[in-house]
Amino acid sequence: MAVGLGSFPVIPSISGVRFAAMEAGIKKANKKDVVVFELAEGSAVAGVFTQNQFCAAPVRVCREHLAKAKPRFLVINTGNANAGTGKSGLQNALHTCETLANLTGVSLEQVLPFSTGVIGEPLPVDKITSVLPSALKSMASEGWSDAGLGIMTTDTLPKGAYRQVEIAGKVITIGGISKGAGMIRPNMATMLGFIFTDAAVDQMALQSLLKQTTDQSFNRITIDSDTSTNDSCIAVATGAAQVPVITDFTQGDGALFAAAFLEVMQELAHAIVRDGEGATKFVTVEVKGAEQQSDATKTAFEIAHSPLVKTALFASDPNWGRILAVVGRAGVDSLNVDTVSIFINGCEIVREGGRSPSYSEDAGQLAMNPEEIHIVVDLGSGDQADTVWTTDFSHEYVTINAEYRT
Amino acid sequence: MAVGLGSFPVIPSISGVRFAAMEAGIKKANKKDVVVFELAEGSAVAGVFTQNQFCAAPVRVCREHLAKAKPRFLVINTGNANAGTGKSGLQNALHTCETLANLTGVSLEQVLPFSTGVIGEPLPVDKITSVLPSALKSMASEGWSDAGLGIMTTDTLPKGAYRQVEIAGKVITIGGISKGAGMIRPNMATMLGFIFTDAAVDQMALQSLLKQTTDQSFNRITIDSDTSTNDSCIAVATGAAQVPVITDFTQGDGALFAAAFLEVMQELAHAIVRDGEGATKFVTVEVKGAEQQSDATKTAFEIAHSPLVKTALFASDPNWGRILAVVGRAGVDSLNVDTVSIFINGCEIVREGGRSPSYSEDAGQLAMNPEEIHIVVDLGSGDQADTVWTTDFSHEYVTINAEYRT
Repeated sequence: MAVGLGSFPVIPSISGVRFAAMEAGIKKANKKDVVVFELAEGSAVAGVFTQNQFCAAPVRVCREHLAKAKPRFLVINTGNANAGTGKSGLQNALHTCETLANLTGVSLEQVLPFSTGVIGEPLPVDKITSVLPSALKSMASEGWSDAGLGIMTTDTLPKGAYRQVEIAGKVITIGGISKGAGMIRPNMATMLGFIFTDAAVDQMALQSLLKQTTDQSFNRITIDSDTSTNDSCIAVATGAAQVPVITDFTQGDGALFAAAFLEVMQELAHAIVRDGEGATKFVTVEVKGAEQQSDATKTAFEIAHSPLVKTALFASDPNWGRILAVVGRAGVDSLNVDTVSIFINGCEIVREGGRSPSYSEDAGQLAMNPEEIHIVVDLGSGDQADTVWTTDFSHEYVTINAEYRT
Repeated sequence: MAVGLGSFPVIPSISGVRFAAMEAGIKKANKKDVVVFELAEGSAVAGVFTQNQFCAAPVRVCREHLAKAKPRFLVINTGNANAGTGKSGLQNALHTCETLANLTGVSLEQVLPFSTGVIGEPLPVDKITSVLPSALKSMASEGWSDAGLGIMTTDTLPKGAYRQVEIAGKVITIGGISKGAGMIRPNMATMLGFIFTDAAVDQMALQSLLKQTTDQSFNRITIDSDTSTNDSCIAVATGAAQVPVITDFTQGDGALFAAAFLEVMQELAHAIVRDGEGATKFVTVEVKGAEQQSDATKTAFEIAHSPLVKTALFASDPNWGRILAVVGRAGVDSLNVDTVSIFINGCEIVREGGRSPSYSEDAGQLAMNPEEIHIVVDLGSGDQADTVWTTDFSHEYVTINAEYRT
């Protein structure tokens, strides 16, 4: 029941990136569940990872390998998160990398592993390594939807996005895939996002761009407030398009590139929300008029996490008192309740902290009916703002998560 | 579908306290929705209220009146919270108090108003004031279940508790009622709790006892993480039993009284959880082995709020990886993931941060089946602990909150 999520885009091939998606039998039969990416030598690779202290084994390995070498391969499995698995989990992640390194002649540290799925079960490492030889034989630079399918868990649709911009007279492509539908409240990154470009970007600049745009995309979405143990987002710039290296995003081609990069990141992040477990609404929560940006961020997330607000959204019920109650408990010290206004899809619902004189139940109902809901809370006490994207809370969410392992 | 909540206890009459429960037509026909309490002259009255900055009009009036005078009457309506109602809400709360004051000859400030129900609708003040004369004619000191019924919203059962202890050779009674089933994550108090005793307690001592026991009862329960705008908890000591005034709870009769008082508070708080919206489980979350108590409190609440943990509880699914993931994201700086153990109903599930060697899926399933679930998380890094009580997250919760106003 994804909300407004179109079919997978036809992402063009990105020079310097090849991949294959395989069936290793970790998920149900006839489902792709292992994806291997090969990156051109010399590619700049940046990564951001979960802040969950129980981070998964592959996240620990990724961090260590990224610090030591320039990656040449990414290997991703779904169906098992390899988290909460202790020392044997680490060994399994390393063994996967080692097998791929031996098959391709790169060093162990040049392989980055990623896992997503059930937490706490031993990784079926033999299933993964057994498909690596055939994966290497079928590497291609097109057919991105297979890669999108190969990293899905409770996702109902594969997620991809791309943009093209002209740099120094050449068209370069920024494309990527993402996955995730539950345990989504990323903190630094999302439950697997991979963004590739054939532009050339300085390594440090790419890392800073990834971090900055993550804070405007994956770090501003929430489905159920649960930060995953496996969140990882990787950006790769292969440089294979043979254009000048970008080092500065504040002007010229660099600014053009950064804007397109942010669009890809946001489209991938929004796709996760649109396909959120049981989602029937795509909800934008914008808080403005705050003294501090952190107040806006905090209030927006509290609204997006409130089970009462989310069930009212599911029912298309203009029960705005629940939004008001969240604003009051969000912990904004400077809050002046008498200056708060609330709008839903442009309909003024609260003015000066109480029901707007122009509000009617009919108008509220009309505003709540669409699949796309834009909530604006104006705190009326400053000029800082932030925006968060989320979904409603439906019966289907309960069903999916009560039956996830059955 | 209340969990293990027995029938309403036969609370004895408490000298100095009389009450009446009326049908004012705010809720559906044939439902009691206004309750009036009369307190003996000279009663000590203590109160704790919501920390939600959008506190309701009656909460503001209560705080002001309590600071000015010794209360003689409490007037409570359900069906409408009188919150988010601005200046006219305040006027309506004051008008209710004034009407009761005029009918009884006490001062305006000696009446405390309480409201609970839908947020943002104008208070039907005429309905409330119109039943006050007949309420005053039918005041009685028994029939507490009617008072419990008269303050219910989405509660399925009235909630009451009492204890009796001997002070200076006389039996004194501590009894009370509470309500609440949704928007329950009290911060200072719950969505209406009233505790009465005929013992004599010093005013300052009563306030400190109420605050302290609230932190061990109402402030440690959560159903859906949403702090209400109307939470209020009132303790009344009429002194009508003619026993020595209690000023010290550390020894003798005072200690006996305080222990019984805490038991009543906890029983009333647990009753709210047992009758939580859609609850099929009563869940105790105990976090111990913490360096700081605040770390234990924070971790326990994060587990209790996690939609993924709550849906797994609903399904009786031993998906303990979700608990582990919450511990890792709870924000405990001193967390050492390698010393964490987790037990469910005595079954060791996690040891040293990974799956316990003794764990089996069958044992986990057995542990998750009962209606009463005790989760113990031992952080293994200190001697501080805290306990929080909560419910699971069921289809019924979504249904109740999607259809609340229809």
